Amino acid sequence: MTELKLIYFNAKGLAELSRWMLKYAKIPFTDERVEKADWPERKKAIPGGKLPVLEVEGKMLPQSLAIARFVAKKAGLLPEDPLHAAFCDAVVETLRDVIVDMFKIKNAEDKSEEEKKKILKEEYMPNTLFPLLERLDKRLGDKEWFIGDQISWADFAIARTMEGLFSHMPDLATKFPKIKAHTDKVQNLPGVKEWIATRPDTPS
Amino acid sequence: MTELKLIYFNAKGLAELSRWMLKYAKIPFTDERVEKADWPERKKAIPGGKLPVLEVEGKMLPQSLAIARFVAKKAGLLPEDPLHAAFCDAVVETLRDVIVDMFKIKNAEDKSEEEKKKILKEEYMPNTLFPLLERLDKRLGDKEWFIGDQISWADFAIARTMEGLFSHMPDLATKFPKIKAHTDKVQNLPGVKEWIATRPDTPS
Repeated sequence: MTELKLIYFNAKGLAELSRWMLKYAKIPFTDERVEKADWPERKKAIPGGKLPVLEVEGKMLPQSLAIARFVAKKAGLLPEDPLHAAFCDAVVETLRDVIVDMFKIKNAEDKSEEEKKKILKEEYMPNTLFPLLERLDKRLGDKEWFIGDQISWADFAIARTMEGLFSHMPDLATKFPKIKAHTDKVQNLPGVKEWIATRPDTPS
Repeated sequence: MTELKLIYFNAKGLAELSRWMLKYAKIPFTDERVEKADWPERKKAIPGGKLPVLEVEGKMLPQSLAIARFVAKKAGLLPEDPLHAAFCDAVVETLRDVIVDMFKIKNAEDKSEEEKKKILKEEYMPNTLFPLLERLDKRLGDKEWFIGDQISWADFAIARTMEGLFSHMPDLATKFPKIKAHTDKVQNLPGVKEWIATRPDTPS
């Protein structure tokens, strides 16, 4: 089998979840990072014209979650039990929705920075983000991993999402200590830990 | 095993794909439709507060695509080959993105109906919808099904999405005759055909 190539921009963004899982499972891959200046030209050869894509067996697989699920399967992080696998999917899709909602507010063209901050603090956090984190907190309870009793790609997806959120909202760690401890645990897994210590330093 | 219960509004929307697959595979299920008037009360007992959910083995599974993938697995419509399964995921996620983009335009609060129509016709259709349909058309070629050489839930997802698009933009059928023929084929599968002939008559 030819080596996998994960093509994305020079950022964590939508590729970092797959990078963590590949590193955790010691699956060799090329971590190709396209510079913004080269993107208009490169884009022409990317079906759908969006990154990330995973080059695998000579084919281009698009869509970050399709890539992540494929990598999770390879990495032994996709539960065999169909209902456990489905709850992983549900967690991952829910996280995606909540992050998309956040970026919708952050990128709104018709709002000032002040207004955006106010909406994030007074509407998004209490009505969207906190209820999700409370549900996750409750679901984790005293368990080690989120789905069933084994580590799964849901744990990776939650920890990777929380890495981003904790860096922007450090208060969340005090409010959700169990989720913080879980994120730390995933970030300290063999393979993931070394990757985080040595990965390219990018703002997001 | 207890019977599945698919809970959604009285609409095709985000539940119809799973309904088609359940009917195709002759998997018994309760097709519960929540009336809008009852929703504020019902919502309190739905984790995450969104529909559809699938009640399965006493648990509530949210997220339409997590539900659809779980149903696809049960229905024998999820490819065994991991790369084929991944390309199904990529197709399904891409269709979702393109439909979300359409609704973003249709639901824009700061635009008139005239402006929305213009954006849909002059920007969305040539730049987003047509390129996707051209790629799908090319991928289908002279094959019977989209992924590999067997029917999969990608075929169901494409046909269900196209059902909605053809009903609003009948010209698409002339522009993409192979996709139209494929949609017709899925809609005429045993189980699906009878369902479509007898399902509740809802506008969307």
